[in-house]
Amino acid sequence: MKIKDIGEFELINRITKKFKGKKILVGIGDDAAVIKTKGLQVLTTDCLIEGDHFRKEWFTPKQIGMKAIEINVSDVASMGGIPKYALISLCLPNNLDVSFVESLYKGFWESCDSYGIDIIGGNMAHSNQIMISIFILGEVDEKNLSLRSNAKTGDYLMVSGHLGNGRAGLRLFQENINAYKKIKNNYLEPKSKLDFSKKISSYVNSMIDISDGLAAETKHICDESNCGALIYKEKIPINDEVRAVAKTLSESEYDYALYGGEDFELLYSVSKENIDKVEGFIVGEITKNEGMFLLSNNKKERIKKGGYDHFSQDIL
Amino acid sequence: MKIKDIGEFELINRITKKFKGKKILVGIGDDAAVIKTKGLQVLTTDCLIEGDHFRKEWFTPKQIGMKAIEINVSDVASMGGIPKYALISLCLPNNLDVSFVESLYKGFWESCDSYGIDIIGGNMAHSNQIMISIFILGEVDEKNLSLRSNAKTGDYLMVSGHLGNGRAGLRLFQENINAYKKIKNNYLEPKSKLDFSKKISSYVNSMIDISDGLAAETKHICDESNCGALIYKEKIPINDEVRAVAKTLSESEYDYALYGGEDFELLYSVSKENIDKVEGFIVGEITKNEGMFLLSNNKKERIKKGGYDHFSQDIL
Repeated sequence: MKIKDIGEFELINRITKKFKGKKILVGIGDDAAVIKTKGLQVLTTDCLIEGDHFRKEWFTPKQIGMKAIEINVSDVASMGGIPKYALISLCLPNNLDVSFVESLYKGFWESCDSYGIDIIGGNMAHSNQIMISIFILGEVDEKNLSLRSNAKTGDYLMVSGHLGNGRAGLRLFQENINAYKKIKNNYLEPKSKLDFSKKISSYVNSMIDISDGLAAETKHICDESNCGALIYKEKIPINDEVRAVAKTLSESEYDYALYGGEDFELLYSVSKENIDKVEGFIVGEITKNEGMFLLSNNKKERIKKGGYDHFSQDIL
Repeated sequence: MKIKDIGEFELINRITKKFKGKKILVGIGDDAAVIKTKGLQVLTTDCLIEGDHFRKEWFTPKQIGMKAIEINVSDVASMGGIPKYALISLCLPNNLDVSFVESLYKGFWESCDSYGIDIIGGNMAHSNQIMISIFILGEVDEKNLSLRSNAKTGDYLMVSGHLGNGRAGLRLFQENINAYKKIKNNYLEPKSKLDFSKKISSYVNSMIDISDGLAAETKHICDESNCGALIYKEKIPINDEVRAVAKTLSESEYDYALYGGEDFELLYSVSKENIDKVEGFIVGEITKNEGMFLLSNNKKERIKKGGYDHFSQDIL
């Protein structure tokens, strides 16, 4: 059955669940949602586009739904916030199967439930390509608020986990390679580092999530904090499987980590005083002078390349 | 110059303006925006899709930007709320002119400025079709909160202004008719009824905005309020120009008003006690029995048709 056969309102009925939050006065079913808030709110939006962010041949609809939520939660986590409410704007082709949309929503709900997020609103429209635009509202304690703009000279530059998986997974699908199941699964089902963020956010000076590669994200911190950075190339945590994928494809695992996308780990800077209070991997330091440099075997070279740019590259 | 030539970050730099609100701690330039709130917040999202909601041959980019904001403000207005913050998710083809995006943003800003809305965040991605997804966060006083679900038997059913312009304008463009400039301009530059809403919201029992025709919106109120409605056909306010368009095209102006879309007037129900406190046109009444009826020349007929459905109809 196609969505044009049942129409918009029946479709919305099928995918709407009751919300749980006690501060929700109005959920799905009116012109807008209404919630009771207090204090600092974090607001973010990110979208997934068929062809640009996912292919239906690689991802199940449920995985697409999960990924759409995770990438937004990742943005809230990188601010030190806790996600609370989601609104979902869907643009869908008429001839899409109803079951596809239902599975997509299973993915939305599974990820949202895992974080205690209520889906309180949304919108559907007709398009040629599948486009999923998610808006998340969360809360943040002022003491946990972690900006890109507050890195200090001398801070350690750290990452929450291993890098390069996102690009390695993408490359495996692009090259149609049937091995490395774990890498491919991590690519299909990325998880935000919200729990990790909760542990460290009150101790970091600056924080960002790594969606466009370590180099691009470090550059964002440097630009916003008016500082430079030195990245210790060999200290970048890259697991053996990602190294093996790079070797198989005669590519560089460091390029995956530095210039690849979609790792969704956190990148943060921490003062020397707080270094014992945080987990993670030290990958560099914040410097006074402008510019980003890569230190490898005692040689410093300027990092010129950026990360993934949505308009300059066709990646899938 | 195309947007692929300058890339995502340069494009964002070109369209970002400084925000004005004093409660904004973080605006564009971090992973998420951060604002200080208190009380009841209204959240809504609506999107505009090339081909479905606009054609580049009909609308200037600035008009597309304005319309994208107005339709969302209309949703906030219909709740009795005041819009405060916007986040904009743009999906754009690589080969789009930079000047198109800059003009689009002129439209976003012009409408936002007219309402005192700050654009505090957003997201850009690559797509084949232009898709604009807007999220608006606003505030609402509990006494002004106007839901679909609170219509009472015996309420007058009212509209804020003349109906049918949206469909008449669309039909003029579809049929390539060069007259009726005012109707066409109203179609290209719809305005939300936020000011009107501010005057009446504390006196209405239920309210909704008319984006999909009077019949469909009345049905929403009936469904959510567990009531019926009687619409007085000849009382529906339709201006002479819309009547003339319908005549020119051998169509019914009442069909435009009842089943057309994009009028963005308000539909609301008001108790007999409050009727002197509100402006607008009485077009019917809320009834106890289920079902929607049209009263015309003392004959009652059941309204079966709905309004515009995004998946069942290809409208442009």
